[in-house]
Amino acid sequence: MKLNKLQQALAVAALLVPVLVSAKPDPEVINAIRDQGFNHSQVMQTLHHLTDKIGPRLTNSPKMREASLWTMERMKSWGLANVHQEAFEFGRGWTYDKASMDLTFPRRTSLHTIPLAWTPGTNGTVEAEVVMLDAVTEAELAKYKGKIKGKVVMLNEPMDTEEPRREVSKRYSAAELNEMRAFNIKAPANDGNTPPDSVEARRKFSRFNDAREAFLKTEGAAGALFRSSWDGGLVRVMGQNHRVGKTFPVPGLMLPVEHYNMLARTIENGITPKITFSVDARFHDEDVNAHNTLGEIPGSGPEVVMLGAHLDSWHGATGGVDNAAGVAITMEAIRILKAVGVNPKRTVRLGLWSGEEQGLVGSAAYVEEHFASRPKPTDPKERALPRWMWSNPGWPITVKPEHEKLSLYFNVDNGSGKLRGIYTQGNAAARASFADWFGQVSDLSDGVITNNSTGSTDHASFDQVGLPGFQFIQDPLDYFTRLHHTHVDSSDHVLPDDMKQAAVVLATLVYNAATTEARLPRKPMPTEHTAEEKQAEKLKADKRVRSKDRKALGELSSR
Amino acid sequence: MKLNKLQQALAVAALLVPVLVSAKPDPEVINAIRDQGFNHSQVMQTLHHLTDKIGPRLTNSPKMREASLWTMERMKSWGLANVHQEAFEFGRGWTYDKASMDLTFPRRTSLHTIPLAWTPGTNGTVEAEVVMLDAVTEAELAKYKGKIKGKVVMLNEPMDTEEPRREVSKRYSAAELNEMRAFNIKAPANDGNTPPDSVEARRKFSRFNDAREAFLKTEGAAGALFRSSWDGGLVRVMGQNHRVGKTFPVPGLMLPVEHYNMLARTIENGITPKITFSVDARFHDEDVNAHNTLGEIPGSGPEVVMLGAHLDSWHGATGGVDNAAGVAITMEAIRILKAVGVNPKRTVRLGLWSGEEQGLVGSAAYVEEHFASRPKPTDPKERALPRWMWSNPGWPITVKPEHEKLSLYFNVDNGSGKLRGIYTQGNAAARASFADWFGQVSDLSDGVITNNSTGSTDHASFDQVGLPGFQFIQDPLDYFTRLHHTHVDSSDHVLPDDMKQAAVVLATLVYNAATTEARLPRKPMPTEHTAEEKQAEKLKADKRVRSKDRKALGELSSR
Repeated sequence: MKLNKLQQALAVAALLVPVLVSAKPDPEVINAIRDQGFNHSQVMQTLHHLTDKIGPRLTNSPKMREASLWTMERMKSWGLANVHQEAFEFGRGWTYDKASMDLTFPRRTSLHTIPLAWTPGTNGTVEAEVVMLDAVTEAELAKYKGKIKGKVVMLNEPMDTEEPRREVSKRYSAAELNEMRAFNIKAPANDGNTPPDSVEARRKFSRFNDAREAFLKTEGAAGALFRSSWDGGLVRVMGQNHRVGKTFPVPGLMLPVEHYNMLARTIENGITPKITFSVDARFHDEDVNAHNTLGEIPGSGPEVVMLGAHLDSWHGATGGVDNAAGVAITMEAIRILKAVGVNPKRTVRLGLWSGEEQGLVGSAAYVEEHFASRPKPTDPKERALPRWMWSNPGWPITVKPEHEKLSLYFNVDNGSGKLRGIYTQGNAAARASFADWFGQVSDLSDGVITNNSTGSTDHASFDQVGLPGFQFIQDPLDYFTRLHHTHVDSSDHVLPDDMKQAAVVLATLVYNAATTEARLPRKPMPTEHTAEEKQAEKLKADKRVRSKDRKALGELSSR
Repeated sequence: MKLNKLQQALAVAALLVPVLVSAKPDPEVINAIRDQGFNHSQVMQTLHHLTDKIGPRLTNSPKMREASLWTMERMKSWGLANVHQEAFEFGRGWTYDKASMDLTFPRRTSLHTIPLAWTPGTNGTVEAEVVMLDAVTEAELAKYKGKIKGKVVMLNEPMDTEEPRREVSKRYSAAELNEMRAFNIKAPANDGNTPPDSVEARRKFSRFNDAREAFLKTEGAAGALFRSSWDGGLVRVMGQNHRVGKTFPVPGLMLPVEHYNMLARTIENGITPKITFSVDARFHDEDVNAHNTLGEIPGSGPEVVMLGAHLDSWHGATGGVDNAAGVAITMEAIRILKAVGVNPKRTVRLGLWSGEEQGLVGSAAYVEEHFASRPKPTDPKERALPRWMWSNPGWPITVKPEHEKLSLYFNVDNGSGKLRGIYTQGNAAARASFADWFGQVSDLSDGVITNNSTGSTDHASFDQVGLPGFQFIQDPLDYFTRLHHTHVDSSDHVLPDDMKQAAVVLATLVYNAATTEARLPRKPMPTEHTAEEKQAEKLKADKRVRSKDRKALGELSSR
């Protein structure tokens, strides 16, 4: 009875939702956002559907396609306009159905393993000896000629484990937040003027990697083992190249530190371990296009405010904090705004990106299509490299008409921790607006505004072409101690209260950004460094390389 | 060249080791112990052999037998006397060679699993639906009649995960150590006067467990899934009953929280998951006797000082901190004492126990054989229960002649953390000796002496019959956050510097205990509580039960 009356009341309330035509932020809308976000939240339902019902969402896998369609369906059900996908060329999809590995000599036990994405499966169960391939140069590779046929090679060093760091979960202290507030030097630029030694180091690694892959193929290795970068049983697993025509030559398998180290110590003790393993994996070549998903609340004017998060994940778990959390928070923020009936001056547009884990590929494609493009490398060899290895993203930046109309882009991709503030990426003039907006949620968030920059996720695609792209300061929790890219990044570790806070704070900020009089102030457009600046960078880079050489020499002479 | 000279020098030094006839502790021996323990340590070699070369050491498994023989061989090679095994009846051994589990519906992926010890394997690969068996009473079990045939049942609740505790590794602070020092009330007794409600609760659990096992058998379940008690991917796995004639009816498999919870949520969402799994496991019935290993440095007098650790481990990893660490520390301590040539007044005896993980079975058998026995329950039903479920260990205690001759027993079984002090188990009169001995290593250890008790390992077998059995205060490190009984309890997480400290401190204490004039003072012999005391306990116990009932009622009414 009680319940039925409640249901009736809710149905009546739904009919009464006012259409708010906003010229400037309305304080009652701020209250309505909180009510919707805290008392009628759907953020965890979204999260659970993406993680538990759909599962891992590797770019261009069938599950990622399913997730993309589902988010569109949800956006439509909430009444968003212009819900659609935008395609971009990506490469192949890949799925693994199962994988197992067993030690058979010198003793028998099962090992925990997950294959690296875009590595081939086995044809049934393979039995092989395990050897260490301890090579960091092509000359060192050559020493293994004729020695790895039919064998599984270990490609990483064992980890020298030590006393674990104390803090597995972290919330920022007042002192740490104050340090961020006090950041008062030029923020590191995100503009594509990459230091030459960094470019060279990446290429060197890439060249060796190619040589090693070729070596594994010609020498007929049976498989390759990789060591997880975190210990404690965490299998932290990513992938190899996803481009058509470039396939890792053998099954590649990630092991937890404890199992990898045990194999390495066995070899060091002069015993050659034997394993059996099998991987059931498939490539999806039928469509090399991946898709971003877009949806919006149309504004009364020509300008746009964007918010977004990457929908793709790695395959070792269900991508809970990386990044179903960000997707659920941004979807919830726009759902809240629609539910409270905002009718903003600027269009509020949600972008759910694909291909983030392979180098911000989806958001970069969207930015290039809509806002600004930079020339690709003219050297075909360089162009064949993954985008993140290009010496720079090319000059000049060619802007399109939409570039002028984007007020800002808010990105969420650092787990389920509360929004404690925002990085301005050096856009000091944006501070006044952020201070005003965060002031409306000062009971929920410290609202720390740091002039520092953060990178490694999709706001960088915007920042790089002179658009105001931002990422929040979030409580790290256990994101970087046990969840990021590991096999336990499941919905279990997403904190509901933090998620609701994030959705409400984000919705409030987006509402403000969409209704305030003036567009957010911008930084100057990125420019290519001058010949003099480049020369100075080159000298600095040479010094860094030289210093590394000296250090290596010192290590040698002190033996 | 250099190396050869060093080798020669060492060989000469070995010939010159003096035979020290000690009437009282010699300060130069203390120096020699440190030199041997820090500059010629073998503690990590011992540790690595037990973990990496031998592997898991489940009681009565072939690997445990191998470990026992190897420790004897090492003791002999160091020149220890009277190296031998002592058998006791235990039950069956068990080994698992491999296990795998794959989710096949509603999506495909591999799950991480380790079988529970002493559960049967499968005959090849089994495919089955997964259902939740949500029952805590026999009446609730009955509801599942006819519903679990051929299915895999989930027996535990999913875990309600939350923000993880911050500290993964811990060292005691000065403040915490001071609190331990200040413990000044009667230490909880370890004498077998178990509170009646605790006995009843255990029996209730045991009765339900038996009923559930019978139900799984008669109903024809295909397997049982258990949830790890820690999250973050840690598979914390122990076993079922090891006694001949009592076999868990179906394969039992432990899953990490994240995989178990995912299956549970899928079921809650109305979808029945399907899995395939296989377990290759065997029982070893050929010899139901397990063995403790003993070795000693004979003393000039009739008295004995013992040190020891349990050699057995669980099967999910290689038992690094639980308890190859304790074995390596105690073996190293007696090796050091032999190497420095002590010739003690009291015999120094090392005991490496089997069956600790199944209820201190090995040390209890040794104590019963040598020092004191207590009558077993007369009720055959009670006697059929595992020892830890007996209402008490029986009165009176019958002492044997050796009881009088044991000065003390030092146990090591809390990981690889430094020895920061010792628990007297309420033996306040022992404090003066401990203070004196720890004073000789005050630069290495805080030497905290707490009058409090600790339990759950083999010193309790001694304490229970009035013998001075002690366990140390050790830095917990990550023992109780990620290693204890988990699949990552490997040699990787054993800290070499801490191990050396522990061996040197222990050797120093044992040396003192073996050479000081007087035997360590004892506590009064344990006595059975009087009828009046028992009545008071019964009233207290009834109150506790009643309070739980009230709490449950309160929870209900506040819904």
